[in-house]
Amino acid sequence: MGYEAINLIDKFARIDAQWSPRVVAEMNDVQFKLAKIEGEFIWHRHDDTDEVFIVIEGRLVLEFRDGRVELGSGEMFVVPRGVEHRPIADGECRIMLVEPRGVVNTGDAGGDRTAPNDLWV
Amino acid sequence: MGYEAINLIDKFARIDAQWSPRVVAEMNDVQFKLAKIEGEFIWHRHDDTDEVFIVIEGRLVLEFRDGRVELGSGEMFVVPRGVEHRPIADGECRIMLVEPRGVVNTGDAGGDRTAPNDLWV
Repeated sequence: MGYEAINLIDKFARIDAQWSPRVVAEMNDVQFKLAKIEGEFIWHRHDDTDEVFIVIEGRLVLEFRDGRVELGSGEMFVVPRGVEHRPIADGECRIMLVEPRGVVNTGDAGGDRTAPNDLWV
Repeated sequence: MGYEAINLIDKFARIDAQWSPRVVAEMNDVQFKLAKIEGEFIWHRHDDTDEVFIVIEGRLVLEFRDGRVELGSGEMFVVPRGVEHRPIADGECRIMLVEPRGVVNTGDAGGDRTAPNDLWV
């Protein structure tokens, strides 16, 4: 049988839009998504799930209502369920998101920054 | 409130044993574990869950009964539930495992390679 590694660099090269997470793998009901992001996102929260951010390349700021955390390459953070947050990246940043299948990027906020869900790359 | 990034390099520096996964984060019931591995592990499977391997540094071979996959830095693979596998690393390899809380490293096989579970670093 053929087994193939999932190469993150190769997957990123095939992502043609910012702020549009693409699924690269599933473990049970959990999805691993890659996203290219740049600039400011909107404030939102996910009431039903924690959300993991892992920075693969670049720098990411996660703003909270009462603080912030800055992540560089090889750093991660778990945003607890229900906590409002806003991702910001000064330059293009490449991140991996880990969260259950079905989570939408804009959470409770909706609006025109909502990306198509469950797109694979 | 204070928010702190989880730095994978810093965490690896604090892991003093090979083949002993250490938890660095949880998302819902899913744990993110780091492990330093070198040499051959034992054949085993996890009947109740898929298991994610992400190589942070080094090279990892996952052997299966009917094939194998080799992973370098920045590559990942999802071992489906129930599939027998054996990790092998020629030199020390640093990996992230993602799997539900409670999964034991030796799966169904047990034995003296079984590491303490739920150790955090």
